[in-house]
Amino acid sequence: MLVLAIDTATKACAVGLCRDGQILAEYKINMGMTHSEGLMPQLEQLLTRTGTTKDDIDLIAVSMGPGSFTGLRIGLATAEAIAYAWHKPLQGVATPLALAYNLPVEGIVLSPVLDAQKGNYYQALYEWQNGEVKELQSVQVVNKEQMLENLALQGKPAVILGECAKIDAAALPDWCRLAPDYLRLPQAAGTALAALKAYDPNAEKEIFGLEPYYIRKSEAEELWEQKYGKQ
Amino acid sequence: MLVLAIDTATKACAVGLCRDGQILAEYKINMGMTHSEGLMPQLEQLLTRTGTTKDDIDLIAVSMGPGSFTGLRIGLATAEAIAYAWHKPLQGVATPLALAYNLPVEGIVLSPVLDAQKGNYYQALYEWQNGEVKELQSVQVVNKEQMLENLALQGKPAVILGECAKIDAAALPDWCRLAPDYLRLPQAAGTALAALKAYDPNAEKEIFGLEPYYIRKSEAEELWEQKYGKQ
Repeated sequence: MLVLAIDTATKACAVGLCRDGQILAEYKINMGMTHSEGLMPQLEQLLTRTGTTKDDIDLIAVSMGPGSFTGLRIGLATAEAIAYAWHKPLQGVATPLALAYNLPVEGIVLSPVLDAQKGNYYQALYEWQNGEVKELQSVQVVNKEQMLENLALQGKPAVILGECAKIDAAALPDWCRLAPDYLRLPQAAGTALAALKAYDPNAEKEIFGLEPYYIRKSEAEELWEQKYGKQ
Repeated sequence: MLVLAIDTATKACAVGLCRDGQILAEYKINMGMTHSEGLMPQLEQLLTRTGTTKDDIDLIAVSMGPGSFTGLRIGLATAEAIAYAWHKPLQGVATPLALAYNLPVEGIVLSPVLDAQKGNYYQALYEWQNGEVKELQSVQVVNKEQMLENLALQGKPAVILGECAKIDAAALPDWCRLAPDYLRLPQAAGTALAALKAYDPNAEKEIFGLEPYYIRKSEAEELWEQKYGKQ
């Protein structure tokens, strides 16, 4: 089964092809380009260079967030459009779960975080056990202190990855580290592999039924509610 | 400092851009395409999409092996040609060292291996300590038993990566695992980061002085010596 994966949940733009668990190709750019500008040309490059046509593809995988509001909308709109136009199933993947594939090492707790603005983070916790990723804590909105408290509760060495540029590595306790810069942001491999695992060909799914996993309201929505009350 | 990295030491073709330790872009294909066919178009795609010109690039990094004889020759010839044509310095990187960047996790011994044919492997051992990769054993040609003996001597959990498709994961001892398939082969990130660390702008280097790191003789050379004696 050939999976075409798209991840635009952060400032990195990652696309990839995965056949039956093996990553055939990954194109990833993290240069501050807007996804609306970069995603389609990058996808076209990937398909052209690998000689992949729409007939080869069996599943479209897309990172659902939480993450950048605009990034998620662009990724999801593109994935939905391709799935619709090419009559392919579409599988959404939680961005923190995709991130857990960046460091598939046992014995450590992985804490993918995504910037929830205003000093807050989306945090989930995972651990690799016998070659499988296991969720220890589902996504929560936390501040930095709560983030570390959640990790401390696990009582194991921990690695934070994701959007952790604002976290001071030197201020972390001994048992907790930041992942190296080049393994922090989403890679298409994780999105593809998590989608492949979640995909159920027998489940009925509407292509246009997927919603980005925002959790928090956008700034615009919050301001609207402050001004006009809840709808 | 902007590094353009090339790794064709295995069947994977990986190119990337790295600025001061941050990976800006990585394009990687592992579909059994020949590097002579794929490397230049992939490089061109990377530079075009990221809007990178020759003036932006400060250093060319190339994976030196051990690895595939033909792959290494193609990667090195391409890197030398670009460095020569664009007047850029060239930095070679040992392929096993580049591989150690795939899993920068402390507390485990990393054993990058590359297929040395006839049941043998090139094996080196590394460990991440305080955010730096440390070589525990330089490259040796070993059979599978020797590979595991070298690892056992370290007395720590170990992960084998690289060209390990022929190694039976189920037959490995408890303390030793194979890296997941998608993290086994070289990524341009490791090549770029290791080159950046090794590069000395004051050292005089001839662009055409680099030789691939073969260790073993090629099949053709061995047959020649059997037939005509050592030169």
